[in-house]
Amino acid sequence: MIAVIAVMTVKDGSGAEFEAVVAELAAQVRANEEGTPLFQLTRSKADPNIYKFMELYRDGDAIKAHASTEYFTAAFKAMAPLLVGEPQIEYLDAL
Amino acid sequence: MIAVIAVMTVKDGSGAEFEAVVAELAAQVRANEEGTPLFQLTRSKADPNIYKFMELYRDGDAIKAHASTEYFTAAFKAMAPLLVGEPQIEYLDAL
Repeated sequence: MIAVIAVMTVKDGSGAEFEAVVAELAAQVRANEEGTPLFQLTRSKADPNIYKFMELYRDGDAIKAHASTEYFTAAFKAMAPLLVGEPQIEYLDAL
Repeated sequence: MIAVIAVMTVKDGSGAEFEAVVAELAAQVRANEEGTPLFQLTRSKADPNIYKFMELYRDGDAIKAHASTEYFTAAFKAMAPLLVGEPQIEYLDAL
């Protein structure tokens, strides 16, 4: 399995909108991607503008399937204007 | 729910032993802690000495229950000599 920790920082005041976009994305992932057993948004307690996604994928194909969906593309488009800087995406081996 | 991302760096050559200790701990967590729906070890692809735990707890009580078990104490004792520096434990709100 492959794990992903993705870190995104949002602009002040954009948290609620960001969380709504991600809630919709997460619901789509759960409904459509049996190769994605975990897609969990978390919010830093130290800085509420920092969000960390905890994700697990069965394999590389599951990641490709995830990233090629319409709902993923739409969510990323909606998130982009809310972000400060680029998302940091880290891939790890899930043991 | 509360999320935890814990980062630990091991000494060169200690990875296999560390992974064995954590595998045992993870099995105990899964068998005994229904308040801990996720306890996932991951290993950085960039630096295989860096491990990141992805954890989810139902609430603060679940974290306390987890940290007060004998198997947790024993695992931490076994991990300590394998580590470089202190573990970095980050608590986040799981949304």
